[in-house]
This record gives sequence, C-alpha cells and structure tokens, in this order.
Amino acid sequence: MTLPLAFDILHSGVRLSLVCAGAGLVFAFVLIAIVIRSSPGNERMRQISSAIQEGAKAYLNRQIVTISMIATIIFLLLFFFKDHPTAVGFLIGAFCSLAAGYIGMRIAVLANTRTTQAAAARSRTAALRMAFNGGAVTGLLVVGLALLAVGVFYSLAGKIVGHDMAVRSLVGLALGGSLISVFARLGGGIYTKAADVGADLVGKIESGLEEDDPRNPATIADNVGDNVGDCAGMAADVFETYAVSLIGAILVGALTVANAPAAIVYPFVLGGISVLGAVCGILFVNFSGGKPAGVLMGAVGMSALVSAILFWPATHQLFPNGVMIGDVLRSPSDLYFASLIGLLMTGIVVVITNYYTSTHYRPVQKIARASETGHATNIIAGLAVGQHATALPVGFIGIAILLSFHFAGLYGIAVAVMSMLSMAGIIISLDAFGPITDNAGGIAVMSNLPKQVRAVTDELDAVGNTMKAVTKGYAIASAGLAALVLFGSYVEELKAHLTRNGQHFDFQFSLTEPKVIIGLFIGGLLPFIFTAFSMDAVGKAAGAVVREVRRQLQAKPGILTGQDTPDYGTTVDIVTKAALREMIVPALLPVIVVILVAVIKPLGPVVLGGLLVGTIVTGLFVAIAMTSGGGAWDNAKKFIEEGHFGGKGSPAHAASVTGDTVGDPYKDTAGPAINPMIKVVNIVAILIIPIFF
Amino acid sequence: MTLPLAFDILHSGVRLSLVCAGAGLVFAFVLIAIVIRSSPGNERMRQISSAIQEGAKAYLNRQIVTISMIATIIFLLLFFFKDHPTAVGFLIGAFCSLAAGYIGMRIAVLANTRTTQAAAARSRTAALRMAFNGGAVTGLLVVGLALLAVGVFYSLAGKIVGHDMAVRSLVGLALGGSLISVFARLGGGIYTKAADVGADLVGKIESGLEEDDPRNPATIADNVGDNVGDCAGMAADVFETYAVSLIGAILVGALTVANAPAAIVYPFVLGGISVLGAVCGILFVNFSGGKPAGVLMGAVGMSALVSAILFWPATHQLFPNGVMIGDVLRSPSDLYFASLIGLLMTGIVVVITNYYTSTHYRPVQKIARASETGHATNIIAGLAVGQHATALPVGFIGIAILLSFHFAGLYGIAVAVMSMLSMAGIIISLDAFGPITDNAGGIAVMSNLPKQVRAVTDELDAVGNTMKAVTKGYAIASAGLAALVLFGSYVEELKAHLTRNGQHFDFQFSLTEPKVIIGLFIGGLLPFIFTAFSMDAVGKAAGAVVREVRRQLQAKPGILTGQDTPDYGTTVDIVTKAALREMIVPALLPVIVVILVAVIKPLGPVVLGGLLVGTIVTGLFVAIAMTSGGGAWDNAKKFIEEGHFGGKGSPAHAASVTGDTVGDPYKDTAGPAINPMIKVVNIVAILIIPIFF
Repeated sequence: MTLPLAFDILHSGVRLSLVCAGAGLVFAFVLIAIVIRSSPGNERMRQISSAIQEGAKAYLNRQIVTISMIATIIFLLLFFFKDHPTAVGFLIGAFCSLAAGYIGMRIAVLANTRTTQAAAARSRTAALRMAFNGGAVTGLLVVGLALLAVGVFYSLAGKIVGHDMAVRSLVGLALGGSLISVFARLGGGIYTKAADVGADLVGKIESGLEEDDPRNPATIADNVGDNVGDCAGMAADVFETYAVSLIGAILVGALTVANAPAAIVYPFVLGGISVLGAVCGILFVNFSGGKPAGVLMGAVGMSALVSAILFWPATHQLFPNGVMIGDVLRSPSDLYFASLIGLLMTGIVVVITNYYTSTHYRPVQKIARASETGHATNIIAGLAVGQHATALPVGFIGIAILLSFHFAGLYGIAVAVMSMLSMAGIIISLDAFGPITDNAGGIAVMSNLPKQVRAVTDELDAVGNTMKAVTKGYAIASAGLAALVLFGSYVEELKAHLTRNGQHFDFQFSLTEPKVIIGLFIGGLLPFIFTAFSMDAVGKAAGAVVREVRRQLQAKPGILTGQDTPDYGTTVDIVTKAALREMIVPALLPVIVVILVAVIKPLGPVVLGGLLVGTIVTGLFVAIAMTSGGGAWDNAKKFIEEGHFGGKGSPAHAASVTGDTVGDPYKDTAGPAINPMIKVVNIVAILIIPIFF
Repeated sequence: MTLPLAFDILHSGVRLSLVCAGAGLVFAFVLIAIVIRSSPGNERMRQISSAIQEGAKAYLNRQIVTISMIATIIFLLLFFFKDHPTAVGFLIGAFCSLAAGYIGMRIAVLANTRTTQAAAARSRTAALRMAFNGGAVTGLLVVGLALLAVGVFYSLAGKIVGHDMAVRSLVGLALGGSLISVFARLGGGIYTKAADVGADLVGKIESGLEEDDPRNPATIADNVGDNVGDCAGMAADVFETYAVSLIGAILVGALTVANAPAAIVYPFVLGGISVLGAVCGILFVNFSGGKPAGVLMGAVGMSALVSAILFWPATHQLFPNGVMIGDVLRSPSDLYFASLIGLLMTGIVVVITNYYTSTHYRPVQKIARASETGHATNIIAGLAVGQHATALPVGFIGIAILLSFHFAGLYGIAVAVMSMLSMAGIIISLDAFGPITDNAGGIAVMSNLPKQVRAVTDELDAVGNTMKAVTKGYAIASAGLAALVLFGSYVEELKAHLTRNGQHFDFQFSLTEPKVIIGLFIGGLLPFIFTAFSMDAVGKAAGAVVREVRRQLQAKPGILTGQDTPDYGTTVDIVTKAALREMIVPALLPVIVVILVAVIKPLGPVVLGGLLVGTIVTGLFVAIAMTSGGGAWDNAKKFIEEGHFGGKGSPAHAASVTGDTVGDPYKDTAGPAINPMIKVVNIVAILIIPIFF
C-alpha cells in the first residue's frame, strides 16, 4: 500500500467514472420529469397514493431516528477507538444508504398511481414503461450515489490524510452502508411482511375480504410495506452491495497489486461504463414492445452487451502492458476476461432464478400441483424447490471463482464481482418494478377501477414477482462473491497489521486446524439463527397487526358493511413500532458475535477467519433457498389463480395461499437480509483487527 | 503404521471388548426370552401384528435384493480396482448393516402387540418396560454386532494380510456399513413417510377416518413403515455410526500415534465397557417406577455414570505412562478427560433436544400457539424453531472439539466421538421405544380395544416422540464429530499416500485457496440437494399411495361402511416399489459427486478436502434443523390434542396437522439420512485416494 506513482491515471480514471455517474444522474432526472408529467389519475387514486406516501414517510422517518441513534453510538466508538477518517467514512456510508432507501421509496410512490392510470387510460405497454421508469430512477440514483460517495470520499480523503489512510478508511464507509442496510432490510422486511401476513390472516381468512379491499384496516399498511420493504429496503441493500464491492475491489487492488494505481481505478471505470450500459437498457424498454418479461430481459441483455463492448478498450487503456499481481504478469485480456465473467454470471443467475420462480416452468407448476393434496404437500414441495434452486447458482459461483482466480488471482475475483455489480443500475430497475406494479394493482382495487385495469396490473405484477426473485438471486450471488473478496482483504489486512507490529504472520486458516472448523461452525450458524430471529420478528409484528384489525372490526362493525371507514393510521403506526422494535436483535446479532469471537481468549483471529467463510457458505445456501422458494410459492399461487388445478377458491388455492404466506418472510425479510449480514460480518472483522489483535 | 511391539496388549484389549460384547448379546437373548414369553394378546391383535410383520418382511426382503445388486457392483469394483481385503471388509460391513436392520425390525414387531397387551391387561409400567425391552434388544444387538464385526475382522485380517493392511481395509467395512445405511435410512424413511402422509391425506382429510382406522387401506402400510423406517432404518444407521466411529478412531490412532497399540485398542475398550453400562441402564428401567420420561432419562444417566467410572481404571491400565501423540506426551488423565467429553456431550445433546421438542417447554408451545392463526404461521414457527435448535448443539460441538483436541489432538476428538457413540446401546433402546409404542397404539385401535388402552399407549407414544427426536439429535451430533475424524484421516491418508509415491505433500487446505472455498461450496450443497431429493421422493411415493387408496375406496364403496375389507397387501406392495425406486438417486448422489470431484481435472484432492468439511458444516445444521423442527411440529400437534388452544377438531388442530405432516419427511426421511450421507462422502474420499491421486 505505497503511494502509487502514476497519480494522474488514478485521478483521471476516477474522474471518468464520476462523469459517467453524473450522466446517469442527469438521465435519472429526465425520467423523473417524465414520470411526474404523467397523469396521477383521479381524485380517489391520488388520495390513496398519498395515504401510502404518508405511511411510508412516517415509517422511514422513525426508522431514520432509530437507526441514527445506533449509528451515532458506532460513530463515536469508531471516532475514539479507531480513527477519524474511518468514523467519517462510516457516517457517509450510513447517510448514503439511508438516502438511497428514501429516494427509492419516494420515486416508487410517485410511479405507482401513474402506473395504474397508464393501465386504465392508455395501454399495457404504457403501464409497463411507467413502472419500469420509476424503478429505473432508483437504479440510476443508487448506482450514481454509490460511485459518487466512494469516489469523492476516496479522492478527498487521499488529499487530506494520504492515500494509504484513505484506502483503509473506506472500510468505514462500507460498514456504514452495510450496517444501515441490514437495519433497513430487516426493518422494512419485517414491516412489509407483518402488514401483508397480518392483513391476509384477518382480512382474507377471517372476514373473507379480497386482497387490497379498502374495508381491511391493514390494507394501507400492506401497501406502505411494499414501499418501505421492497423499495427502500432493497435500494439500501443494493447501494450497500455496490459500495462494498467497489471498496472490496479497491482494497484488494491496493493490498495485492504492487504499485498499480490502475488496479485501484479499474473498478471505478467498470462501474462508470456500466452506467452507460444501464441507460441503453432503459432506452430499450422505452422504445420496444412485446411481452413484458421479454422486454425486461432484453433490457438486461442490451445493458450487458454495451458494457462488455466498452470494457475492452477501457481495460487496454488502463493496463497497456498488463500488470504484476503477486509474482505473475497478467495481460489486459486476462483482466478483461475476469470482468466478462461478472457480466456472464449476472445473465446466468437471472436465467436460473427465472427458471425456478416463473410460472412457465416445472418447479412452480410442481408446487401448484402439490397444492391439490393440501397445505402440507404444498409446503414440502416449496421447501424442496428452494433447496433444489441452490445447486446451479452455487455451481456457477464456484466456476466463476475458479476462472476469475485463474485470470488474475484474488484481484480477478474482485474484478468479476465489481463487473457483476456494475449491472446493478439495470437490475434495480427490474426489482423496483415489482412493488410499483403491486401497489398499482392495490390502487386499482381500492379506487374501484374496472376489472380490466386490475387484469393489466396483475399481469405486470406476476412478471414483477419473478423479477423480484431474479434480482434477489443476483443480489445474493454477488453478495457471496463480494464477501469472499472481503475475506481475502481480512487475511491481507491481518497480515499487514501483524507485520507492522513486528509479529510473525503464520496463520494458514487450514481446515486441519480445529479452530478453523469451530469458526466455520459458528459462522455457519449465523445465517440460520439470524433468519430464525427474523421470522420470529415477522410473526410477532404480524400478531400485533391481527390484534389491531380484530379490535377495529369489533369496535366498528360498520367497517365490513362499508358504512364505517377503518382507521388505517393506527395500523400503520402499530406495524411501524413493531417492525422497529423487532429489527434490533437480529441486526446486532452478527456484530456482537464477531466481536465476542475476537475478544474471547481461546478463539481469536483464526476462529474469526473460519467464521467469515462459514457465514458465506451457509448464508449463500440459506438465502438462495429462501428467496427462490418464496418466489416459487408466490407464483404457484398466481398459477392456480390463472385457473389451473381448480383456480381461485378451490382447496388447492387455499393451500397455495398457505405456501405464499410462508414464503413471504422467507423471500422478503429473512432471505434478502442475509446479503448485507454476511458483509457486515466480514467488514466488522476487518475493522477490529487493529483493535483486538 | 508399523507393526506394534506390544502385540499382546492389542489382542488382550480387543478380546476384553469382545467378551463384553458377548455378555451384552447373552443379556439381549435373556430379554428376547422375556419378550417372547409375554402374552401377545388376543386373536385379532396377533392377526394384525402378523400382517404388519408380513409387510415389513416383504419390504425388507425386496430392499435386500435391490441393495444387494448395488453392493455386488461396488464389491466387484473394490475387488478389481482396490484390494481384496477392502472388498471383503465392504461385504462384511454391508451384511452387518442389513442384519442390524433386520434384527431391529423383527424384535420390534414381536414387542408391539405385547406392549398393547401389557397396557390392556397389566399396567402402564408393564407396557413401558415391554416396549423398552424390545428396543433394548436392538440396542444391545446392534452394538454387539458392530464390536464383533470390527474386532473379528481386524484380528483375522491382521493375521492374514498383516497389521497395516488390516487397518487400511477397515475403511472398506466402514463403507459397507455407511452406504447400506444410507439406502436403509432413505428407503425406510421414504416408505414410512409415504405411507404415513398418504394414509393421512386420503384417510383423515378426504374420508374423515381416524388415525389407524382399519377401514383405511393404507393403515397396515403405515404401521409397516414405522418398523422398516424407524426400527430397521435407525438400527442400520446407528450400527453404521458406531462402526465408523470405531474405525475412525482406530485409523487416527494408527496414523497419528506412533508405535502405540494401546491407542488402537482404547476405542474397543471404551465400546466394550459401555455395553456393561447399557446393561445397567436397562436393569434400571426394569426395576424402577415413575413417570416414563423420567425413567428413561434415568437409564441414560445410570448408563453414562457406570461408563464414566469404569473408563478411569481402563484408561490407566492401557496407558500407564501416557502416550506420545505428535510431539506431545499425553497423560492417561488427558485421554480420560477426552472420553468424558463424549459422555457429557451425549447428556448435553439429549437435554437440549428435549427442550426443543418436548411439549413441556416454550418452543413446542410457541408452535402450538402459532397454529391458532392458521397453517402458515404454524409452518413459519416450526421452521424458526428448527433453526433456533441448531445453535446450542453446534456451540457445544465446537466446545467439545476445542477441549478434546486440547487434551489429545485429533486422537482426542476420535476418543470423544467413540465414547459418545459407546452410549449407543442405551440410546437405541430409547429410540426403538418410539415406533414400538406407536405400533402398539395402532394395534389397540385396529383391535377395538377399550379407550383406556389407547390412552396408555398415547402417553407412551408422546414420550417416544421426544425420545426419537432426542436420539436423532444425538445421532447427528456424533455423526458430525465422527465425520470430522474421518476428514482428519483423509488428510493423513493423503499425506501417507503421496509420501509413499515419492510426491511432496504440500496441501494446506487453507481458506485462502479458492479451491478450498469451491470445495466448501460443493460440499455445502450436498445436504441441501440430498434432502430436496429425499423430500421429493416422499412426495412422489405418497402420491402413489393416495392414488391406490382412492382407487380402492372407489372400487369398493363398502370399505368405508365396514362391509368390505380393504386390500392392505396391494398398498404395501405399491409403497414398497415406490420407496425402493425413489431411494436410488439421492443415495448415489453423494458417491457420484465425490468421484466426479476427484476425477475432473481442475478440481482434485484440495477441492475434495473442502468438500468433505463443507458437507459436515451444512449437514450438521440442516440435519438438526430438520429433525428438531419435525419433532417439535409433531409434539405441537400432540400438545393441542391434549386440549390446548381448542383441542382436537379445532382450526388450530387442523393447522398443527399440516405442520406435523411437513415435519414427517423432515424428521424421519431427509434429516436422519444426512448422518450416514456425510460419512459416506468422507469414506469414499478416503477410499479413492490411491485410485485417483
């Protein structure tokens, strides 16, 4: 980590990527203008939309207060026990992660009623574009924000405290992003699923109300949940993964590539170029027609293609004579191939997850068929599908690791991860599409719009479900790879730290050491226990919703007949409090375990190393099984509602609703929260090296 | 692995353990005489019992044919591509594993109708003792068989082909035991749960029949399933774990302890002594009264105490001056403490699993409460309980590894595992108690005995459920530790093999090598995909049962009114075929994956090492989560049936039946089959070292 010689490469490269990020932001503002200028629909629709917006804002504001308290404590700890740049980095990361969530939610709420209106007054294609553009704004803003935050902090800190310190304090920024993202994912996830499950339990099952029936006092909370969970939580999550991958790649570049500023700049450049790719993908959606799923997948393909083409000259420009990594000279083509692996992985994971969660293929149809023999067989089939769905992604992750390591060692893996994450702009656009269409459908029902409108939004919603599942597969695969890069950084950082202190670094992290095995066990445990606590949290918060809805229906029997209006506000309030209360324990659990392992005497750095890898290994499986299983359950219900196996109202449908409800906390709370969790574990480990070892 | 000097120690030690095993067998025959001399009940009871026996025998005979074909192929492969002693060892292991299953089933069928009769004509205590003694016969026979098989094979092979070769060919015996046990566990597990789920689905849900109603054409198949799954499958499984732990300890003793025949004899001696402990435990049950659960737990405590006391003089006798392990001299007390850790772990795992699966504690009651809000919340709560239940066992396994390694390195872990497994005699007695009481209840209902009889068997059955869950926790914890010992043997064997061939052994199995990570991923995947296939298999086989029962009820409507007799035989036949067909793929999967990893070029020995550990890490979590979760669901239903949350027939009860049904393949098929699976993976890896590397 010596000051690089070719400082101008460093700066011009980072500047290039900031320019691309800026261009993306400008394009995002154009999209915002397009969204805002569209008609938000009639009075009733605007009312509902603003009720949802109020609820979402109220929740996010309280969440910010809660998280800010925790963030302040951690900031002070870092400020006094670590160093000032890291503490400042932490604040920036935390702020940006929160901001990403806030932005995602605001845009989504703007887009949902306009999507309903487009479906009602214009066409399916218009509705598709509206929902997609709403999501695309979030995608571009999140990616732009991440590139700007890391780039500007790195440049400024480099000038103030020197290059070495700047690189090291980036870990603070990563921690800020990840930790806040765990809270946002969990809080939002608990909120959305508690409201959803609670609304379904009393609404659909006890009172026989349809989904989104305005007489259900939890219906606004349910729609708020889509925004605070699927939009705000997801945006914070992807911001975090993006920033951490970028920082991880910079760290590995600085730690393992000698004297090569280009190795630090390269991840920035990949990120910047892909913003242009994302813009092309967004334009593709706005200028082509056809089946929704096809159009969206085409956008991903277009985006990846543009990036793949532009990566080639950029790589050769940065590394004209190749680069020494360890003892091996790597050619520019080696690095280019590593970056291609990331793009390919994106496509592969998208295709695989699509297979396991779309209504068009065997797995979902198998769950639907199993629903005919009852609740239990539906559940067994769904659990099995989730587990089956882990095989191919993990297999390809293994191949990606092998190949990218072959091309450029640990740095090659880092490049592949960054290139995979560089696709985040377009991928978030797909993901945010889901909750927007979900809300659009809700608004259509609550505003008593004609059935055809709901038919359009339902069709888009089914596509959105698959897109949500697909992007979760992408998020967890990239998170697993990013965490591996962080583990590599942990080892390098530990080595550097001990060498600085004149100690001998003789850790092998060998599987033949019992301490490594114990670390693997403790780490392997974390995802299991973390998700168990998360599911408990949803259960408790949903219970609170059920009690409140029952209370309202009992106090005002007129609600069910339509003579009384339910009090949506108190339900929103109760879920808000419950979600914020319940998110604390699971969110802090991984941090506490890592610190305990570092502090408790017979454990220490070797056990901690095992822990980091153990968390990645089981985390990957648990997260994929949960998100894919959940998505498959959801679409199995949709498949039956399309008229298969008896259709709506049949016993098979009842069984599929059970599966869908089980899948809710799986796919929207516990599963996706594993992504930031495994990174928090790794980042905290890196941060505490100089404190405890 | 040189021929030990003190050959007489070796022989006298092994002989001592064989004498103990012989004494256990004599005691088992006394118990058999006691069981047989008791009254088997009236004509109708004897008829039903013999129908169950016929079905079970028919299944096991066909299973033996199927497995024999596969075993013959593997025997020939070993004979021609490996060496003759290993091939012969394989045959002996396979034969004994099958025999253990057969014996377990035969005794259980003898005991079930006699337990019903004891409950009807005598007392709860008499019924408890009858069921327990039936299980105890299996326990003593399985342990005696394992000690005899390993001891006699080791002694004879030592004389014929020399000591080194004898030790090495023991791995063949281990493979025979493990592979057959995977088949028996899976085949039996698929059979029992397909019959159970199938009988419930059409019987209880579609036709409103009670459990074990003789009008249900699948009811005999259901009772047969208890015997071929819970008795035969379990006996084969524990035989395998016992034999493998013994062989693993011998291997580690031979590979890491220089010139110490005592280190090879010690595991035999621990096993022999504990047979005496088991006999004391069995006597305790036969001479004390009180609550069933208390009596059974008392027997475990008594057994462990006797072993703990006798281990002390035996250890000092064998190692009067301690022993050199690696570079360190270990005192006899060090080894004694390692053996104590195994006994303590047994107690700890039993207590923890009991907490998570008994109706008396929070977890089960939480699931019962969650059933009030429906099927989905029952499932979510059960899944969460299963995941929570992994934390403490894995934590204590970590502590046990740390401590036993501290006392005597890898050999210390092997000693702890063997000492833990030495408790198998008494533990199987508890486990087999479950299916015997389950069948006894079935016979009571089918023979129209008074309600009080069923009340007694139901009470014993609830205890049996917890015991089954508890012993599964024990089995998986010991399997995880045994597999770790095997992984240690893999590394040592690889080192020895490469050194013999003049190659340099420079494998670190370091977590910083991507190949190790890839191995961890592939290995980590195995339990997920293995259980997914197993659950699918249950689903398919259950579907076949459902179709057959529906066909019979349609063809002969008189069955439901009691005018026609159902054709139990064809149902038994159909489940038999389905179970045998469906067990092949999941059982061969791990073997094939291990061989592929060894053969495919860029993978090889390092990836394989990672794979072995990866399978252990995720296997432990998945197995504990499945068996504990399944047990908890089962008892949550029992808890509601006791009258809580609305009792039988309430909506909460319906939801709890769903959970119970989901838990069935979890706890009786997929979860327990992971035990032999993780050992097969490790043993195959050891065996193929000289072939592929």
